[in-house]
Amino acid sequence: MELGMIGIGRMGANMAQRLVRDGHKVVGYARTAKTVQDRVNEGAITSGATSLEDVVKQLSEPRILWLMVPAASVDDTIAQLLPHLSPNDIIVDGGNSHYQDDIRRAEELKKHQIHYVDCGTSGGVWGLERGYCEMIGGEDEIVAYLDPIFKRLAPGVEAAGRTEGRTGEPTTAEQGYLHCGPHGAGHFVKMVHNGIEYGLMAAYAEGLNVLRHANIGKKQHLVDAETAPVQNPEHYQYDMNLADITELWRRGSVVSSWLLDLSAHALMQSPDLSNFNGRVADSGEGRWTVKAAIDEGVPAHVLSAALYDRFESRNEAEFANKILSAMRFEFGGHHER
Amino acid sequence: MELGMIGIGRMGANMAQRLVRDGHKVVGYARTAKTVQDRVNEGAITSGATSLEDVVKQLSEPRILWLMVPAASVDDTIAQLLPHLSPNDIIVDGGNSHYQDDIRRAEELKKHQIHYVDCGTSGGVWGLERGYCEMIGGEDEIVAYLDPIFKRLAPGVEAAGRTEGRTGEPTTAEQGYLHCGPHGAGHFVKMVHNGIEYGLMAAYAEGLNVLRHANIGKKQHLVDAETAPVQNPEHYQYDMNLADITELWRRGSVVSSWLLDLSAHALMQSPDLSNFNGRVADSGEGRWTVKAAIDEGVPAHVLSAALYDRFESRNEAEFANKILSAMRFEFGGHHER
Amino acid sequence: MELGMIGIGRMGANMAQRLVRDGHKVVGYARTAKTVQDRVNEGAITSGATSLEDVVKQLSEPRILWLMVPAASVDDTIAQLLPHLSPNDIIVDGGNSHYQDDIRRAEELKKHQIHYVDCGTSGGVWGLERGYCEMIGGEDEIVAYLDPIFKRLAPGVEAAGRTEGRTGEPTTAEQGYLHCGPHGAGHFVKMVHNGIEYGLMAAYAEGLNVLRHANIGKKQHLVDAETAPVQNPEHYQYDMNLADITELWRRGSVVSSWLLDLSAHALMQSPDLSNFNGRVADSGEGRWTVKAAIDEGVPAHVLSAALYDRFESRNEAEFANKILSAMRFEFGGHHER
Amino acid sequence: MELGMIGIGRMGANMAQRLVRDGHKVVGYARTAKTVQDRVNEGAITSGATSLEDVVKQLSEPRILWLMVPAASVDDTIAQLLPHLSPNDIIVDGGNSHYQDDIRRAEELKKHQIHYVDCGTSGGVWGLERGYCEMIGGEDEIVAYLDPIFKRLAPGVEAAGRTEGRTGEPTTAEQGYLHCGPHGAGHFVKMVHNGIEYGLMAAYAEGLNVLRHANIGKKQHLVDAETAPVQNPEHYQYDMNLADITELWRRGSVVSSWLLDLSAHALMQSPDLSNFNGRVADSGEGRWTVKAAIDEGVPAHVLSAALYDRFESRNEAEFANKILSAMRFEFGGHHER
Repeated sequence: MELGMIGIGRMGANMAQRLVRDGHKVVGYARTAKTVQDRVNEGAITSGATSLEDVVKQLSEPRILWLMVPAASVDDTIAQLLPHLSPNDIIVDGGNSHYQDDIRRAEELKKHQIHYVDCGTSGGVWGLERGYCEMIGGEDEIVAYLDPIFKRLAPGVEAAGRTEGRTGEPTTAEQGYLHCGPHGAGHFVKMVHNGIEYGLMAAYAEGLNVLRHANIGKKQHLVDAETAPVQNPEHYQYDMNLADITELWRRGSVVSSWLLDLSAHALMQSPDLSNFNGRVADSGEGRWTVKAAIDEGVPAHVLSAALYDRFESRNEAEFANKILSAMRFEFGGHHER
Repeated sequence: MELGMIGIGRMGANMAQRLVRDGHKVVGYARTAKTVQDRVNEGAITSGATSLEDVVKQLSEPRILWLMVPAASVDDTIAQLLPHLSPNDIIVDGGNSHYQDDIRRAEELKKHQIHYVDCGTSGGVWGLERGYCEMIGGEDEIVAYLDPIFKRLAPGVEAAGRTEGRTGEPTTAEQGYLHCGPHGAGHFVKMVHNGIEYGLMAAYAEGLNVLRHANIGKKQHLVDAETAPVQNPEHYQYDMNLADITELWRRGSVVSSWLLDLSAHALMQSPDLSNFNGRVADSGEGRWTVKAAIDEGVPAHVLSAALYDRFESRNEAEFANKILSAMRFEFGGHHER
Repeated sequence: MELGMIGIGRMGANMAQRLVRDGHKVVGYARTAKTVQDRVNEGAITSGATSLEDVVKQLSEPRILWLMVPAASVDDTIAQLLPHLSPNDIIVDGGNSHYQDDIRRAEELKKHQIHYVDCGTSGGVWGLERGYCEMIGGEDEIVAYLDPIFKRLAPGVEAAGRTEGRTGEPTTAEQGYLHCGPHGAGHFVKMVHNGIEYGLMAAYAEGLNVLRHANIGKKQHLVDAETAPVQNPEHYQYDMNLADITELWRRGSVVSSWLLDLSAHALMQSPDLSNFNGRVADSGEGRWTVKAAIDEGVPAHVLSAALYDRFESRNEAEFANKILSAMRFEFGGHHER
Repeated sequence: MELGMIGIGRMGANMAQRLVRDGHKVVGYARTAKTVQDRVNEGAITSGATSLEDVVKQLSEPRILWLMVPAASVDDTIAQLLPHLSPNDIIVDGGNSHYQDDIRRAEELKKHQIHYVDCGTSGGVWGLERGYCEMIGGEDEIVAYLDPIFKRLAPGVEAAGRTEGRTGEPTTAEQGYLHCGPHGAGHFVKMVHNGIEYGLMAAYAEGLNVLRHANIGKKQHLVDAETAPVQNPEHYQYDMNLADITELWRRGSVVSSWLLDLSAHALMQSPDLSNFNGRVADSGEGRWTVKAAIDEGVPAHVLSAALYDRFESRNEAEFANKILSAMRFEFGGHHER
């Protein structure tokens, strides 16, 4: 098939390449000409375009325009594309849009007889090799039409052992892509996927932090009225080797996972992770997941805590902490250390 | 009555003074002679002692020894006192001991026919004026014997409006002191009191932090693939006056409390709380409360979160955050800012 | 002044009455004629109206229409009122609207030259007696114009001791009402107020639950491979009297508050609270507070946990729990009890 | 080697079998004679014993006694074994003991010249096939002596792809077993492992619950003063297929893990999980992990929340919720539904 890939940064370029290798034609576009030229040279795209209009011109109808741009730029990009499109063209948003924006956009584009598909994509920098897990929302016939592309981008059924009890021809879910429902359903599932990801990451991070501090009994502690003594220092005399422990858990344990594999790799390279400072970004989906939980009225203690831990890593609790110190000073005359 | 006050720092001295004003005899002791002399000069104690033995000698039997020393020093202090005591003497631990230590100590002292009473005390630096809320554990007859002292230290019934439906002679609870149960019950109640205190403080702190950042829409934000844009900056254009708002809530609102009174005072003096750095200490009871909840198998989401926020204010999540950054780098090539 | 009170349920009627007692003229309206008649008979309102149009007709210009209706009905009510209003009339939303709706409404009404004021109101059923804490958003001159009404509804400066360091003529904040900022600022502050309220309530509830289970060591526990034994049953032998303990804390303790006063009253009446089933409603502001925290990127562990505890009290975690049980069965063959 | 397996329930029997298959001699014991006979018949053990004394008699010195009994029975079992043991015999606790009990036991047994090794074991009912991940604490030479047993029980290096950058002879960690440190270190690591497991499970459970309720906008909601309306029902119209979604995520996504594999299997079998009631047990390690975090002063928001969610699934928040309802009734006259 033919497809225009708009946004050929790391992720978009890898996706393009995976398609090109399979014989699909991919016209690539980025805002800087050098990026486009680099991708052509790497063979990641079939041809480069000099403008959005140029992308459109190089494709035959019905055109498929796959966007891999920041969530904040999607509306602008669509607005710029729209004058050049024809009825029945298809826009796929493969980035991290909020699913509610998908619902809105699909409705607006429908007036122009343009189809819209949202495709949440997981796989990160490993996708070129591992394939991409695709969570798709949109109209049945359009999603079906794009099937060859989704199938090629997906990891394929051999990427994991078959679930006991699944028989017959593997479903698309078993191949790593799924039409989740109407407009927005793809990004909704991707949103929750990332919300879960935050929770999983935080679970490992907190647990490893407990292991890291298992030697706290070896350290000297103050004895004063404001800080309770470590109750049993003899119980905290362990110097744990986190690189070995995470490696250990990769085999046979209940907590084995891909995120654990990555942690084992990172800790092997740098046991103290001294190359990181611990300011953790969040890219929106974690926030949206918690908001969705609240809208639905379902509890999300863990997912929220994972999100807030990131905020705190960026010092956003500072004023709250000052309030606490101020109260302590007010009622007890406690001075901070 | 006569009483030895061991530990006459700020809190012990104020308590002594409250008793002295009422005609009780208080022999005071501190490790530094100057402190003892200062307290005598201030009239906070009836007389000073030069040693624990000296305290004991100045009291008539059965002696009452009231300890106001750091939790970590209680066992030592008792061990030093013990050789000088006689059967039927009474030790009151008025500090912040773990209630399980009370149970142990009471058992040990019983072998020497010494009585032990645990008395959790709330009131901070305001107690001299407001009186102390006392949560008491121990044997019935001993607690009854000490009643005049507890009553005098307590705020008294007039410190709050009478609860509708309470009639007759005010109970001791209504006067601000209560025999909560056997050994350890006093400090157990005090422990939970402080656990709740942490939760209340955190609720105000988090809420005020939300108000503080209500102008975030005025600030410039990055548009990139890793950080979601502020969704609706037009909704966050408020510059809130926290000193006024906390003052406002003191009257007629559901969140009025003594902690709010203190917050209003602190924020009036320094709207940015720039005199604080936000490293918040914790003195043990918050930890013990959460552990008790876990032992009991009851959920304590809020009390735990309040405790952990304090740990985080002291940067104890740093390694956990580095784990998160390392994972993000591993799967997505994300670099920290 | 003259004012139309639209919505004269419990809260609206009490507010009306507080104004009527002070000589203001209040025209009251409710959807059921009987309610209107009852309020007239009680003297809560000066006169009753048979329709929204009738309310408008009974008032002189510029009219003040104070809405005390469910948040979901505010837009409808305004739409019905609008045809009967004249330029410079003022609509006050005294209910629990989302502040973002205030921003939108103010903008829409401005086109009709109608002024809009949002007034978050705390005080519950006690407001008639205690006065209402009012958090106000809107244009300076309009809020100033309404000052006599706000002042009369507020508790007044004598409702709390003056904050040390505040001097001169008491500010409106000290009287219990505050112009917090432009449109929406009032409900924003009220929103966070309620968010904090949820947190405070949860802190007390969790702590009292820990006290309630302090006798867990007295109960028999299973010894099997799946449930850890209570580690130290001898430490959990206390039968705590919660009515006494909450009463105790009202005087001299750090956790004294109005919510504690109410808890002491409830527990005195029914120590087991057997008249309640524990399904806890939430009326929106707690949700909005958490969403605002997320938009702002500030942590809100405690406020969120308090909110989720309410969702859980209504069994909304059921499916999540089934997932946990299913996983446990899958990896360990664990059967539920 | 020769080894006595004390406790041959599901897990002990499978471990025995894995050793027997490799040519080790395993004497098995259980309290009920029938279990012993069954295991002999199955070939899971080399021979059965009629008593603890009989186990000891059938082994040559230095004996290896491997305990697979409930944590609460370990001390009793050791006490019964002790009279029959000889210096240099080795007791391995392969169950879920608290690591602090390991420290105590090792010290006590040392007086009898008996060696003690703690071995936290993960693998559940799958271990026979997948192998067991072993986390080991104890003396260097003793752990080295037992190496053939640990190695045989472990999954082996081929159970996971090799971590990039690891070269040379695979370490024991890479084979799935690790000597983590001195006495207690094994169970400490296992404890944190399970703490993390709780967190991971909760992250999936909460996220899947959000997906499950993505159709909430289709349901009718009340419009009243106490419950905020669902703000945007049009955003929650999705009927998600959780069996497909969990299957989907197994390939190429960031959240792939063994726990996800199990979830996909469970949901395929029963999309509504109607065979579960959602009362989730907890077996101690989650509690101990949180307590360790508190002792160390490191935050554990997520691990705690996961633990409390289990308590709540068993209705342990009931009284706390009643407190909330009581407060709401007190300040607002709110009646529960």
